[in-house]
Amino acid sequence: MRMYDLILKKREGNMLSQDEITFMIQNYTAGLIPDYQMSAMMMAVYFNGMTEEETLNLTMAMANSGETLDLSEIEGIKVDKHSTGGVGDKTSLSLTPVVAACGLKVAKMSGRGLGHTGGTIDKLESFTGFSTDISIEQFISNVNHHGIAIMGQTKELAPADKKLYALRDVTATVDQMSLIASSIMSKKLAAGADAIVLDVKTGSGAFMKKQDDAVALAKEMVRIGNGAGRKTIAVISNMDQPLGNAVGNALEVKEAIATLKGEGPDDFTQLIYELGAQNLIPSKY
Amino acid sequence: MRMYDLILKKREGNMLSQDEITFMIQNYTAGLIPDYQMSAMMMAVYFNGMTEEETLNLTMAMANSGETLDLSEIEGIKVDKHSTGGVGDKTSLSLTPVVAACGLKVAKMSGRGLGHTGGTIDKLESFTGFSTDISIEQFISNVNHHGIAIMGQTKELAPADKKLYALRDVTATVDQMSLIASSIMSKKLAAGADAIVLDVKTGSGAFMKKQDDAVALAKEMVRIGNGAGRKTIAVISNMDQPLGNAVGNALEVKEAIATLKGEGPDDFTQLIYELGAQNLIPSKY
Repeated sequence: MRMYDLILKKREGNMLSQDEITFMIQNYTAGLIPDYQMSAMMMAVYFNGMTEEETLNLTMAMANSGETLDLSEIEGIKVDKHSTGGVGDKTSLSLTPVVAACGLKVAKMSGRGLGHTGGTIDKLESFTGFSTDISIEQFISNVNHHGIAIMGQTKELAPADKKLYALRDVTATVDQMSLIASSIMSKKLAAGADAIVLDVKTGSGAFMKKQDDAVALAKEMVRIGNGAGRKTIAVISNMDQPLGNAVGNALEVKEAIATLKGEGPDDFTQLIYELGAQNLIPSKY
Repeated sequence: MRMYDLILKKREGNMLSQDEITFMIQNYTAGLIPDYQMSAMMMAVYFNGMTEEETLNLTMAMANSGETLDLSEIEGIKVDKHSTGGVGDKTSLSLTPVVAACGLKVAKMSGRGLGHTGGTIDKLESFTGFSTDISIEQFISNVNHHGIAIMGQTKELAPADKKLYALRDVTATVDQMSLIASSIMSKKLAAGADAIVLDVKTGSGAFMKKQDDAVALAKEMVRIGNGAGRKTIAVISNMDQPLGNAVGNALEVKEAIATLKGEGPDDFTQLIYELGAQNLIPSKY
């Protein structure tokens, strides 16, 4: 199998097989396929797209490109949550304690900021002494003992996605639906949760400016999650204005705590209720 | 100016300015733009194409990326000739002596084989002791004294094309009309002739299988040549079967000599008459 032939195949609008996608991702991760071939492939994907089957296969190949977390030592249903991010988006900080308090096990891997949006890890680290850099053993132990843990994404999870995203970022091939969906979902799948709740933002402050695009991305990610055997749901939420009133890492943590006490802004509280309810509906699992 | 923005611009179907194209080619040749950005650009060009203006600007930028030959020491009109190649194509070997004998100065830079087609230099080198590796001074002196010289392309001519072609060759971005035309013409322009005669092959043995494509390529190259101030004409010739009877480097030289003696195969002789006539029509200059 040659990468050249795969580029040509995709350029001509044909579908790549599971074997071809796995070959491509494994060899790219291993450094055996050069960046210049992969960036040509990504541009061909930009123009010709990927089928649902290709997108699932790409996601699985990236999820399996490095370590995958084994959360079997945690009893019960383990829930992960991902937001596509926006200004003032402190959803994870309030949502995860709420659902953990209701008895779900929250084992959440969080990322750092992307573009203009802050990441959950950045927000937590605005407090001196707060450590998100814990071992997997500690992470599992925290979930078992406290019902909840949030940790920074380890380097070993989905290394293919890390490498591919860095390449897409400098070759104008980021904004393609299948590639965005597979990038997000490969990390979620590798992180090992049984169920995934997605909060897809839309509006002027989000990556997806148009609601139609947000719905399409949400559907694509839900298809991938369910296709990979994880119960996955998505909520579309508005990001035309900053979420809540606080913007800024430490201020957002403060507002998240206030919201847990029932003193949060209406828009943010409403979102937590909605996402929390989606998390807790038993028929989803 | 950032290469990222140029990729995005082309991906969105917009036209690159002369400054942008010059920036891209100069910095790519200098190693300041990485292959992975250029291959993404080439794939975007594959899908969105280039305007005539962009194609001329790309050709000029590549022609000026290294040394250009100054043939002013040769008196009279200097003619160069290029064939897109095919099986048994020994046209240069017979055509150049014919037009030189009629008084035109032939200063021809030749290449090596490409894909399944042999190059003029390969054919001449099949004779022990025949050297095509001469200095520019010797080349000019030969044209002045004998009216004709053929030399291998020096490394210094159009280095941007050399580098870009090598990249396109491994990223499935070769077969795009503007890129093919600019690749051929950049070398011809750098080689310094006043007039360029193009022999574009079409048929099952040629790169351009369809006559429409051959005509389109010929028109593109003629536009570029004339746009760059060189008198340029093109002839479309058939390559459904090998040209003449001989195939193989040494055998083809033998057949070319026989044709000069009036003992060549009909199809090849006819082509030499046609191309020779096109070379000699004074109104073309």
